[in-house]
Amino acid sequence: MVAHQDYIIATYLIHGKNDFHKKANSIAVGLTVGTWTELPETKKKQMAAHLGKVIEVAELEPTADGEPRALCKIGYPVRNLTPDLPALLTTVFGKLSMDGKIRCMDIEAPDSFLAQLPGPKFGVEGIRQQLGVAGRPLLMSIFKQCIGMNLAELEEAYRHQVDGGVDLVKDDEIFFRDDYAPAVERVRLFNRINREKEGRTGQKTLYAVNLTGPVTQLVDKAKRLVEQGADCLLVNALPYGLDILHRLAGDPDIRVPLMAHPAFSGAIYASPEYGLSSPLLLGKLMRWAGADMVLYPSPYGSVAMPQADALKVAEYLREPSPVHRRSFPGPSAGIHPGLVPALVRDFGTDLLVNAGGGIHGHPQGSTAGGKAFVDAIRAAVEGRSLQEAAQDSPELKLALEKWGSLE
Amino acid sequence: MVAHQDYIIATYLIHGKNDFHKKANSIAVGLTVGTWTELPETKKKQMAAHLGKVIEVAELEPTADGEPRALCKIGYPVRNLTPDLPALLTTVFGKLSMDGKIRCMDIEAPDSFLAQLPGPKFGVEGIRQQLGVAGRPLLMSIFKQCIGMNLAELEEAYRHQVDGGVDLVKDDEIFFRDDYAPAVERVRLFNRINREKEGRTGQKTLYAVNLTGPVTQLVDKAKRLVEQGADCLLVNALPYGLDILHRLAGDPDIRVPLMAHPAFSGAIYASPEYGLSSPLLLGKLMRWAGADMVLYPSPYGSVAMPQADALKVAEYLREPSPVHRRSFPGPSAGIHPGLVPALVRDFGTDLLVNAGGGIHGHPQGSTAGGKAFVDAIRAAVEGRSLQEAAQDSPELKLALEKWGSLE
Ligand SMILES: [Mg+2]
Ligand SMILES: [Mg+2]
Repeated sequence: MVAHQDYIIATYLIHGKNDFHKKANSIAVGLTVGTWTELPETKKKQMAAHLGKVIEVAELEPTADGEPRALCKIGYPVRNLTPDLPALLTTVFGKLSMDGKIRCMDIEAPDSFLAQLPGPKFGVEGIRQQLGVAGRPLLMSIFKQCIGMNLAELEEAYRHQVDGGVDLVKDDEIFFRDDYAPAVERVRLFNRINREKEGRTGQKTLYAVNLTGPVTQLVDKAKRLVEQGADCLLVNALPYGLDILHRLAGDPDIRVPLMAHPAFSGAIYASPEYGLSSPLLLGKLMRWAGADMVLYPSPYGSVAMPQADALKVAEYLREPSPVHRRSFPGPSAGIHPGLVPALVRDFGTDLLVNAGGGIHGHPQGSTAGGKAFVDAIRAAVEGRSLQEAAQDSPELKLALEKWGSLE
Repeated sequence: MVAHQDYIIATYLIHGKNDFHKKANSIAVGLTVGTWTELPETKKKQMAAHLGKVIEVAELEPTADGEPRALCKIGYPVRNLTPDLPALLTTVFGKLSMDGKIRCMDIEAPDSFLAQLPGPKFGVEGIRQQLGVAGRPLLMSIFKQCIGMNLAELEEAYRHQVDGGVDLVKDDEIFFRDDYAPAVERVRLFNRINREKEGRTGQKTLYAVNLTGPVTQLVDKAKRLVEQGADCLLVNALPYGLDILHRLAGDPDIRVPLMAHPAFSGAIYASPEYGLSSPLLLGKLMRWAGADMVLYPSPYGSVAMPQADALKVAEYLREPSPVHRRSFPGPSAGIHPGLVPALVRDFGTDLLVNAGGGIHGHPQGSTAGGKAFVDAIRAAVEGRSLQEAAQDSPELKLALEKWGSLE
């Protein structure tokens, strides 16, 4: 009988093996103590606490091509791991990732293990409190261009965005070489603009600055940016490695929310037969590592994720947990104001509505683009139709004419 | 006309698009300056140096299912990136990784960019010099079990391995919780054993200790281990992120070779339609980031890589470069003495012969297992058959009886 609080349980989808029980057993032994049957009895006693366990082997219908497949659940003793993402990934999908057609669908970990991972420092409630926004999705705008722009140009683009009423503005994730507009200068300037806007309108805004540099210096750089007024950090969590997210989230001096960008994630989740499932990678692991907000492909746009997966990512980010705060999902790409009712219907209100082209492509420009979203969001949470809301919002009306709607 | 020294060129295999030229163009613009046609002319002048370029679009035969596919080469201006792996991966396969059936097959970068990445600190020649071994593959043994073992047990296993004549011994990559035998104690003890062996036999041995802990502390931990006598570091480069390999390789105080383990790499390379190709991931990127030795699946064992890919990984690790030292390939898994002639025929002698079960599973134990390999390697480089060599080597004879051979 497996005591679940002592095991991390990984679920694998395996294609093409002849004997799934034998395979499951070889995983459970090979990826923990290495060898078992040939051990002397005294040694077995010592090693038993470190030995993996086959929890379940469920054969599925073969594929259309007749390829056998199964879901196998393997338990890894918590005591084999240090409480961090590299140990977790290396243990449950290190060597195994190279072992044929195998995909890690899910990982379940006991709260005693998860409690040693930071989880979000602010989470949904903390960020709502910072912004003073309740009962509606947050609205975020993405710079249309960052690379090659100087500070004055970015300032102009920033003002257009915040003037439309967005709650957050984020850098482009590919913004690494920022010689014409260094991160620290952007942070100082945009922070000033945010405070001006708050004075004028009462609305707070967060600027998510792209955190770049040697991974060994990111914590220090984050602290420097926070000292200079940064109020949110954008992190390419997978290119840098999930552990740096953990270390940023776990550092008490970094007193700002972390926004995880999904850059490179498709290289890991996109195949149906290999890699990690998107809900595991972008939902569970990102939240465990400490992302307050997670961007990922929406089910609507051209860069689309299947709806069931996109919803499951959001579920993992927001489901109640005794140890971790909840994270904001930001299903992104192809978002325009006409999609807001569908977003709210599908994802609820604890949501980042994240738009690039859907704001900047507005016929009247980025400020009107933001306003159209603000009006669409208000209508959606009040249960009014967009058509009705557009009566009082010329910006929304133009947006609907351009992009249509999905209600 | 594209000046290749100014661009990083990524080659993508794309399935299923209708218009590959249009797709290629949208990548070149979207992943660099974001927008182009609508820019005013003066702005275009400013942004031209940052704009990506379509280098080539080569449509391939459709798949057996009639799905269209093409190889597209896109050039990204070097000036858009900082010289590090996270910037490179985010730029060439960040958002794009999530954009349908797309695989990054290769990346070519100008020497001016690569010169800013460390590459191996020692490389093939440096490691050969350290070990005093020329003209033959190196032999490495993997601990059969690490988790749960105490220092005395590991010491015994270590002695059995080095007594067989191996050049290197490595930790298990899943060895994170080492409370019964902390890394620093293993390093001190095994270093002493190595020096004893050298005094006795003249043969040097390197112990590759698994480098674990918070990514923010790995450089400091590596220095501490080196101070205590570590002579090689095993790094789970993908679970931790490739940038930490870069920072370890780039640190002058870490005066020991780095061995990259491929844990988690299958999650990225194994699908034929998504992710990164194995030669790119395990050959180019590992070498650029600074791995002196790279382990990866051999084409022979049960955890197998297609032969063409395994050879290409080795080619990328060892091809001459004006900026980087060459790395040792370690095609691993399923290696036994009977495979040595095939390994040498396929991979040449600048090679790590890396064995776990093929050493520990020897009928007379690990020391005899090492000896069988030593004799097989000598025969292979001298051009003698294993059968002939086995006349004078009872250990090799037994190994061949157990595992057979592939000559
Ligand atoms: Mg962008
Ligand atoms: Mg092992």
